[in-house]
Amino acid sequence: MTAAKRMRNDALAIFRAALKAADPSHAVEQALRARKDLARYERVFVVGAGKAAGTMARAAERVLGRRVFAGSINVKDGDPARTRRIEMRACGHPTPDARGVDGTRRIVELCSQAGERDLVVFLVSGGASALTPFPTPPVTLRDKQATTKLLLACGASIDELNAVRKHLSMFKGGQLARVAAPARVLGLILSDVVGDKLDVIGSGPTAPDSSTFDTALSVLDRYALRGQVPKRVRERLEQGAVGSIAETPKPGDAVFERVENVIVGSNRTSLDAAERKAKELGYRTMILASTVEGETRDVGRMHAAIAREIATSGRPLRPPACVISGGETTVTLKGRGKGGRNQEFALAAAIDLAGLENALIFSAGTDGTDGPTDAAGAIADGETTARAKRDAAKALDENDSYEYFRGIEDLVITGPTGTNVMDLHLVMAR
Amino acid sequence: MTAAKRMRNDALAIFRAALKAADPSHAVEQALRARKDLARYERVFVVGAGKAAGTMARAAERVLGRRVFAGSINVKDGDPARTRRIEMRACGHPTPDARGVDGTRRIVELCSQAGERDLVVFLVSGGASALTPFPTPPVTLRDKQATTKLLLACGASIDELNAVRKHLSMFKGGQLARVAAPARVLGLILSDVVGDKLDVIGSGPTAPDSSTFDTALSVLDRYALRGQVPKRVRERLEQGAVGSIAETPKPGDAVFERVENVIVGSNRTSLDAAERKAKELGYRTMILASTVEGETRDVGRMHAAIAREIATSGRPLRPPACVISGGETTVTLKGRGKGGRNQEFALAAAIDLAGLENALIFSAGTDGTDGPTDAAGAIADGETTARAKRDAAKALDENDSYEYFRGIEDLVITGPTGTNVMDLHLVMAR
Repeated sequence: MTAAKRMRNDALAIFRAALKAADPSHAVEQALRARKDLARYERVFVVGAGKAAGTMARAAERVLGRRVFAGSINVKDGDPARTRRIEMRACGHPTPDARGVDGTRRIVELCSQAGERDLVVFLVSGGASALTPFPTPPVTLRDKQATTKLLLACGASIDELNAVRKHLSMFKGGQLARVAAPARVLGLILSDVVGDKLDVIGSGPTAPDSSTFDTALSVLDRYALRGQVPKRVRERLEQGAVGSIAETPKPGDAVFERVENVIVGSNRTSLDAAERKAKELGYRTMILASTVEGETRDVGRMHAAIAREIATSGRPLRPPACVISGGETTVTLKGRGKGGRNQEFALAAAIDLAGLENALIFSAGTDGTDGPTDAAGAIADGETTARAKRDAAKALDENDSYEYFRGIEDLVITGPTGTNVMDLHLVMAR
Repeated sequence: MTAAKRMRNDALAIFRAALKAADPSHAVEQALRARKDLARYERVFVVGAGKAAGTMARAAERVLGRRVFAGSINVKDGDPARTRRIEMRACGHPTPDARGVDGTRRIVELCSQAGERDLVVFLVSGGASALTPFPTPPVTLRDKQATTKLLLACGASIDELNAVRKHLSMFKGGQLARVAAPARVLGLILSDVVGDKLDVIGSGPTAPDSSTFDTALSVLDRYALRGQVPKRVRERLEQGAVGSIAETPKPGDAVFERVENVIVGSNRTSLDAAERKAKELGYRTMILASTVEGETRDVGRMHAAIAREIATSGRPLRPPACVISGGETTVTLKGRGKGGRNQEFALAAAIDLAGLENALIFSAGTDGTDGPTDAAGAIADGETTARAKRDAAKALDENDSYEYFRGIEDLVITGPTGTNVMDLHLVMAR
């Protein structure tokens, strides 16, 4: 096997190790088996939502068995998991629908039954927010959607959006924790959010909310939307701001005293697993960052610069070296080609790597789906542009990374993985 | 002194150490004093060009004294340096002019007088290419400029531009080395080029040229410019392509046997000096890359992600940590504000750092001038956005980084430094 081929195989093995650490079933099993307190509770309720909630619920049943007293989870249409004691309800995603409202109401009902001697296990993964709409009357689901749409059109940030949405919901922003009290609550969280912020993942039903009705109103005012949102939304927020409606629970609130939120899988846990595997394969390793964001082509070029530095000066690591990072970059679409953020990351890197020997850049999404393609990502090295016999800069301009790498068989293809802890980037040199 | 204040002072001390290593005077003196062979030559000629050529020539005189037999350098208007034996000729920059042609002719004349027992010291720094126009007759300076303009308008790369320009010059692309043979040639190079490519810095008068007349013609054809460039340019390249004109000297050519090119200052040497200083100040250090390019805001965010990782997980280094990188990023202007690539780097980082304690991002240009401002760069930390009381995202949209940092006195101001080895970026955490 050539050195280049071996390094590619190593990259794929490292990616597989990262995927395994993010496997929802594995993550929930490990987290529950590590606990000593499960036998202590009279009844265990299992609730949750997310794209991986079915798999997580099944894993919870495997560990908890008959100790599951009741449960209900909101999943996407077509979730293949089959549970025994826990109800599975298919709900609208990415656009919330009435089934989502019904499912969330069921979750709230169950949690409100739980008493001081009971445990509520709350399973969360990517997509949970859309799967758990529960507008506070008289605000309707349609009102909430109209408000979200207006905010998105103005370029509001995710924090701004959440400040508004949490104050129109009976579930989000820590309100599930309030409903479940006085039961013990254990949140098992598979994070698809940069930085693993508990108040952002699934809009934080079991996490304290720092935003207030005032925050929500000032967001509307910042974008001059107070007069444009549905009247029921405006009235609700204005009533809240003058204190006529209870706030979402804040940091330090007593309802969180019996709540424990555990990140069972995240980009960071996957990077750790990747690092262990890379060490095992003989590489000097370094985890650079787990919250990488920004335009993918520029982040890709930055990674290529690190590869070049390793290869030419032995810094920051001497070869064999593996620098690991993760997060979720973005693509500003300009062309009409086919690709995804990870494939474009590799394409931009390929241009800067051209001619460099014994170095490689790998980028792939842990969900196995990069943009509207059947690939998870791609691999680039110093020979990529020569082998492709296509103008790489032009392919990049056209956002045509998929066809570029398909032509030279350098796509990374895994199929859907059933998880999502964002992306893995590797800089490798031998 | 608060920890934050101390870290800022440390960042500035590290930057000063980086600047000192790139000081043209210091760099040339050190390089010449390290040589044992200077007494061996009958005569020493000192020639050169660049924005720092005056300072470099003065330093050469200090070391070489009366051994300087003759010399001539092309400098910018207003170069404050004063030499004794070496002629200084002010030439057009950034637009080449007839004074540049005269000065370059003088350099060529001197070099052609040098014999086997003589040494030609060739001093190069940023701007040398524009300062040494020497079109090969009948091509005129105006012809060359028209050709460059056409290529730039089509988006030609620097490598493509150079392939054409070297084949219209009697000086660039290794041709000075040919003129100077059989003398010994010592190129002392202050690099302002990412990756320190000898054939790119000053268009490589003493470096082998891998491009050919064929390359030059195919560049014209790639942009359908063969019929549009001045007739004399087209004819010259076509004659060269069929072998009627001598090629530029290629790698392995005998003219380079007695040529030695030494990078006396570069981004990399400055990063090394920065690292030494950071260690001295008690930081764990890492040089990440010296060839960082790409859109500055995305590269800045990537550095912020590293700061966050250090602060939250102690990776890739445990605090006190200083991660060092360098290169030259770019700004895609969209707004109408005032700023530069380093200030915008810090502004984009500030948004992602918000709320993070004990971490800092520093970015500044070693020439002391960032964009059309009097600042070299800026410093951002977790309190920047709170202190600024201005919408950072909006300032970024407007490319208004200068006013943003000026308002909170976080600009880095050095005045012109007399050197340019691109930019220094620091990620620091305590």
